[in-house]
Amino acid sequence: MEKNMPYKIYLSENEMPKEWYNVRADMKNKPAPLLNPATKKPVTFEDLRSVFCDEIARQELNDTDAFIPIPEEIRNFYKMYRPSPLIHAEFLEKELGTPAKIFYKFEGGNTSGSHKLNSAIAQAYYAKQQGLTGVVTETGAGQWGTALSMASAYFKLACHVYMVKVSYEQKPFRREVMRTYGANVTPSPSTLTEAGRKILEAFPGTSGSLGCAISEAVEEVMANPCNRYLPGSVLSHVLLHQSVIGLETKTALEKYGVKADIIIGCAGGGSNLGGLISPFVGEMLRGENQYRLIAVEPSSCPSLTRGKFAYDYCDTGKICPLQKMYTLGAEFIPSSSHAGGLRYHGMSGTLSQLYHDGYMEATSVTQTEVFEAAVRFARCEGTLPAPESSHAICVAIKEALRCKETGEAKNIVIGLTGTGYFDMFTYQKYNEGKMGDYIPSDEELQNSFARLPEID
Amino acid sequence: MEKNMPYKIYLSENEMPKEWYNVRADMKNKPAPLLNPATKKPVTFEDLRSVFCDEIARQELNDTDAFIPIPEEIRNFYKMYRPSPLIHAEFLEKELGTPAKIFYKFEGGNTSGSHKLNSAIAQAYYAKQQGLTGVVTETGAGQWGTALSMASAYFKLACHVYMVKVSYEQKPFRREVMRTYGANVTPSPSTLTEAGRKILEAFPGTSGSLGCAISEAVEEVMANPCNRYLPGSVLSHVLLHQSVIGLETKTALEKYGVKADIIIGCAGGGSNLGGLISPFVGEMLRGENQYRLIAVEPSSCPSLTRGKFAYDYCDTGKICPLQKMYTLGAEFIPSSSHAGGLRYHGMSGTLSQLYHDGYMEATSVTQTEVFEAAVRFARCEGTLPAPESSHAICVAIKEALRCKETGEAKNIVIGLTGTGYFDMFTYQKYNEGKMGDYIPSDEELQNSFARLPEID
Repeated sequence: MEKNMPYKIYLSENEMPKEWYNVRADMKNKPAPLLNPATKKPVTFEDLRSVFCDEIARQELNDTDAFIPIPEEIRNFYKMYRPSPLIHAEFLEKELGTPAKIFYKFEGGNTSGSHKLNSAIAQAYYAKQQGLTGVVTETGAGQWGTALSMASAYFKLACHVYMVKVSYEQKPFRREVMRTYGANVTPSPSTLTEAGRKILEAFPGTSGSLGCAISEAVEEVMANPCNRYLPGSVLSHVLLHQSVIGLETKTALEKYGVKADIIIGCAGGGSNLGGLISPFVGEMLRGENQYRLIAVEPSSCPSLTRGKFAYDYCDTGKICPLQKMYTLGAEFIPSSSHAGGLRYHGMSGTLSQLYHDGYMEATSVTQTEVFEAAVRFARCEGTLPAPESSHAICVAIKEALRCKETGEAKNIVIGLTGTGYFDMFTYQKYNEGKMGDYIPSDEELQNSFARLPEID
Repeated sequence: MEKNMPYKIYLSENEMPKEWYNVRADMKNKPAPLLNPATKKPVTFEDLRSVFCDEIARQELNDTDAFIPIPEEIRNFYKMYRPSPLIHAEFLEKELGTPAKIFYKFEGGNTSGSHKLNSAIAQAYYAKQQGLTGVVTETGAGQWGTALSMASAYFKLACHVYMVKVSYEQKPFRREVMRTYGANVTPSPSTLTEAGRKILEAFPGTSGSLGCAISEAVEEVMANPCNRYLPGSVLSHVLLHQSVIGLETKTALEKYGVKADIIIGCAGGGSNLGGLISPFVGEMLRGENQYRLIAVEPSSCPSLTRGKFAYDYCDTGKICPLQKMYTLGAEFIPSSSHAGGLRYHGMSGTLSQLYHDGYMEATSVTQTEVFEAAVRFARCEGTLPAPESSHAICVAIKEALRCKETGEAKNIVIGLTGTGYFDMFTYQKYNEGKMGDYIPSDEELQNSFARLPEID
């Protein structure tokens, strides 16, 4: 494979996936069902369709069909920015002096700057199909909100984004991109919703949280039958759409003639990681192949590595369904010193189950080591990575340096989810030596776990 | 060609150009020689090499070799982010309802966010080859400074950027990207140089200009024999490096099976436009083909459409060589209401000569119509264009709408030089209806022309 290995591989447009892969179909232990927050019974299609588009509700409940066709109009939109390249990081390898081969799937080459567009366009399409006039969502670091703004502009849907207040203030340009695509952006908590008003009353100076912004968005759609809520991560249908990342990666690796040994992704709610590893974990589930799959999370928000595997609320206002997942508790808010995304209290139910069943490892890294890796990567590979993606880069560098010690030439694949263009405020902190690390204490987590709901 | 036309074409890495194309070799009327500012005689290699790297000085003076090999190390770096895609803007065509076919060559898919990296990496390479330790430059909108920071980080060269003060203040994140790649960034005018101090004394509240920042950078390198000045536009060797844009475009159009009718690029100093049109104008010069080539400039800084074709200084401090070009006068500073780049007082000598000889048209557009076009483009094609690139988009839309009237299915090619990620301050102005237009009065220009140097 060595000779004439191209630096990057773009699939041709007709090699792009025509179906999403639904990993749940191959799981013996399915993710536990979502529970209706009022009855604590498994949610029904009828429960979900007041919040989600009908087709999305169907996809969320579908754990039996392994392949779901991608509608042609979505595939046409995918062509705008996909296939994304799989890049052989030869400059990083040289910098590290490692015998390992490192590849990264780069999802940042579109204006929203991340992989989030893969699900945004699918969800906006189904909203349009259903004759809805608007969509509502929350955004933390801003990637999901931007992606949904672009998708909504394309389908001429109204788009309202509740943006976690700390991001709204630290990332005015992110907000402005959304507005340029026609979205309406509100800092959360806001006084527009009861959920927001409650939080503001209880914690007047709060910088907001994803859990609260979700409550506000869902409350708004429940009051307006022409709108629906569109989530950017955590839920199974989002992972389904994101499987295009893994499917393309698999095809491109075959073109390189390379079998992956280790696949590494950052994990917040799990949308990128779930999408990236889906087809590979599918092979493991079917007994066809073995891989080391590593989820990397921030040590300031360590749901997999230090959370409980239990039913919990997905949002602070407790109006969304409950999910069985690794969680830090729905009221957990990472320290304000934590920058960027990956700040959600829980993890995708699908990934949680896979982790619980031993198909995936998890590790956590501190913010300063993440930025050290990010800058090292940027200076030799060119691309300035998003803080989120840099979690995966950080662990990939560690694994590559381990190979240097052992002399093993492992093949390492990184999910590089996005660019750092809108995180320069945080890079500035790092450049000026002002970045801090925060690791929640055991006591803080125990207090949070004590408030988990009790489900039989 | 219609059937199964791909949305975008990426050449394979081995289809990338191995030689730059030097359009001057095919010009009967060569660009007039640069003049030494002290003697007013044509510059010699010895004159240039105190400011530029030796190989760059040679390329600047070479108007006879049509093809110049691209060193392997530069081609390896190009692989990081090239070939750039040629995209068939089918969503924009649908939005406009035009029979025209629109294609855009997108150069924004690298972290520096623009085409500037094509020359930055070449110039940094020659600096490294020569054993220099540092490079110095100026940047206006910030694209060139970012590109040179990336290139310098790759070759581990020290990099000092004089950033026009108004951009330094309006684009803190641009500055931060440069710092992340290890560059030192100084707002210009500064007190570090005599040129800067003079300007500050004469105009204490000045927001700076490219002409002044160039003087500061050149003054610094003349005092330090281990450093050289690296220019981002205007000069012939920069256009030479940028010819990769046009060469790739030509090959990709052949793959589409399309003959371009109109080729449109924005024009500030001319680096993008020159690179884009070089191989096409070469065909015209050799009598092989005909194209309509259109330079688009801001009406606030209209060097081609309203300037004089005369020898002028390239910098405010008058320490750089003089160039025969279309110019508004070296002391012309566009109104502070003008945002983004394309704010240089003159135009590449090569492009000026081609325009003078009738090979190229030029037109100017106002800022508000440019942003209108930018937002329209972004909402249907996805990509958020840089303000500079949007000048070309604006005229392409006009041409496509003209085709709608006449029913002609012309093939229009746009040079889309970069992304608007770092221009959100300006997009915000537009989104909030606070953007103004400025067109210099005839009197203002006449006053400026009166200060042009007299050269026999």
